[in-house]
Amino acid sequence: MSAGKIVLALDGMGGDHAPAVVVNGADIARERYPGTSFLLFGDPARLKPLVDKRKGLSKALEIVAAEDAVLAEDKPSFALRRRRKSSMWLAVEAAAQGRADTVVSAGNTGALLAISMFAMRMLEGADRPALASFLPTSRGETVMLDLGANLECDAGNLAEFAVMGSVFAQVLLGLDRPKVGLLNVGSEELKGHEELRQAAGWLRREGSPVDFHGFVEGNDIGAGVVDVVVADGFTGNVALKAIEGTAKLYTQFVRDAFRTSTFAKIGYLFASGAWAKLRKRVDPRRYNGGVFLGLDGVCVKSHGGTDTLGFAYAIGVAVDLVRYEYKNKLVEGLAKLRQVTATAEAPPAALQATGGAE
Amino acid sequence: MSAGKIVLALDGMGGDHAPAVVVNGADIARERYPGTSFLLFGDPARLKPLVDKRKGLSKALEIVAAEDAVLAEDKPSFALRRRRKSSMWLAVEAAAQGRADTVVSAGNTGALLAISMFAMRMLEGADRPALASFLPTSRGETVMLDLGANLECDAGNLAEFAVMGSVFAQVLLGLDRPKVGLLNVGSEELKGHEELRQAAGWLRREGSPVDFHGFVEGNDIGAGVVDVVVADGFTGNVALKAIEGTAKLYTQFVRDAFRTSTFAKIGYLFASGAWAKLRKRVDPRRYNGGVFLGLDGVCVKSHGGTDTLGFAYAIGVAVDLVRYEYKNKLVEGLAKLRQVTATAEAPPAALQATGGAE
Repeated sequence: MSAGKIVLALDGMGGDHAPAVVVNGADIARERYPGTSFLLFGDPARLKPLVDKRKGLSKALEIVAAEDAVLAEDKPSFALRRRRKSSMWLAVEAAAQGRADTVVSAGNTGALLAISMFAMRMLEGADRPALASFLPTSRGETVMLDLGANLECDAGNLAEFAVMGSVFAQVLLGLDRPKVGLLNVGSEELKGHEELRQAAGWLRREGSPVDFHGFVEGNDIGAGVVDVVVADGFTGNVALKAIEGTAKLYTQFVRDAFRTSTFAKIGYLFASGAWAKLRKRVDPRRYNGGVFLGLDGVCVKSHGGTDTLGFAYAIGVAVDLVRYEYKNKLVEGLAKLRQVTATAEAPPAALQATGGAE
Repeated sequence: MSAGKIVLALDGMGGDHAPAVVVNGADIARERYPGTSFLLFGDPARLKPLVDKRKGLSKALEIVAAEDAVLAEDKPSFALRRRRKSSMWLAVEAAAQGRADTVVSAGNTGALLAISMFAMRMLEGADRPALASFLPTSRGETVMLDLGANLECDAGNLAEFAVMGSVFAQVLLGLDRPKVGLLNVGSEELKGHEELRQAAGWLRREGSPVDFHGFVEGNDIGAGVVDVVVADGFTGNVALKAIEGTAKLYTQFVRDAFRTSTFAKIGYLFASGAWAKLRKRVDPRRYNGGVFLGLDGVCVKSHGGTDTLGFAYAIGVAVDLVRYEYKNKLVEGLAKLRQVTATAEAPPAALQATGGAE
């Protein structure tokens, strides 16, 4: 891998619309990111005709035969042990062993996490991986993590996630000092869990590698109060899905409202430009997939149901993480965090006043 | 208190727009619910002129002087100890001592919980109170609890909340057997917390007082998959606020979209009926406030920022809880739950298979 030239390993058989979406997404990404090339893992009999249809793609892409595929219903541990010859396993392995810079898959999330944790191992200084993604807000976009990789987290995990999210926002959103918040409940006396208060204490200290805003509440996510929202995987997953469900519900409510009368239907026609703008703003393809942060490698998960543009977007995320050296920045950030936590075994006094009983 | 005649204690000084919203809300409720009467606690000098403006209200309402008021910024423990002569304290006390059937306040939530727990005590068989409210869904309305009264909950608390929510949905939504779900994360292997699995085991058993659907995810709330969503207070609070934040964000997105062009503005005018319908469907006044379930008394919390119609709606919730004997139904349900948990100290085998590692 020469500098400037990025090699992506693609799981050709992962996702609801594989392999077409993977091949066509790669073709779009190839034009968007000149110099990228692809190792495409999967069944050559199915992949080759698709690649041949896309002029010029075959020059930038090599098909690597994989005789097996991870299924959507496979349990992670089954995929880890029994699908070693799958397109997912081989693609992750290529990235883990340095034949590719990064791997992108639209396949089974749990399987991808298990396989990439096993094959890539954790990055120096990182204890657990976190699944991160973008969410639309009134100010732009916010990174949220962990979205379900770790249901139980201690203060150390949460502090690490804060650093991971901060570096991710630097690289993907181009922010110098992203504002980071810990997801909590609002009322003072109904105060948050102990691990949240301890993590907040570390992140507030001098020398902290993140610009720590403090605690945020569920409604602060959509308001874009911070650039990065950190939670344990249970809370983050529930919040993410509650947000997705509400977005879907409101879309339905708006659609229903415009079906109520002839006047409303005429209004809908006049406003078609407005609708297109709205749809673009909340286009799920722009918030496609997520990244497993904290691994000693770059692994991007595209939504299983994504289309070609969505898959191309996921490739773009992987390219940016490699190009802007996310891994090196994260190692630096985690080293700074360790300095802060090492000199502060007990939470600082200021923190206790914030979180303790009044 | 004779049968059919319901006496409501009102905190005349609680909420952002008190006392006007309280007095005017009571006047609307008086017409909606013939036979109700009110004990209105607060500063007579401020209350009397408002009551006198509303013809006929003074016949159904008695002003009870309270020299103090709980402030929005009061800590719950401060309000509990130092605001014993406040309108909130005296109103709760009237309901606790049987001079009123129920109390409604738009004041400080934490203070209202602390005072009502102290003055009313817990209902027989209930260990902790839960804050419950309605949320709009694609199928109508769903009850969600706990929304923040208890951040840490064990399996027993969660099972009790399930019974409380079920009885609440029976009484307020008129459902015979509301479907109850426990809020969890989706993936099997990334399985939920131990207390969720244990509570699910109890609720699934024969003789369970609720119609238990199983685990639900964040997106199932808006989809209306169940009638009652049960969570610990931390998770419930985060989910509720994430939903509120997303609703606000989408409303803004839609509004912005219709400002983009003249065409869109014309479309907006044609569609004004559709907008009115949409606004009504998500009218926050219809989802105003919450109820502290599990207390030996009926205490309804109206949103602090509510208007007159919203406060009248909160009074309606209190009237229904009294009229349809929520407390008796809850005592019955909790007794049934105790029979189930007593014969099942360990979670049943079927449950362990569901929740355990594969």
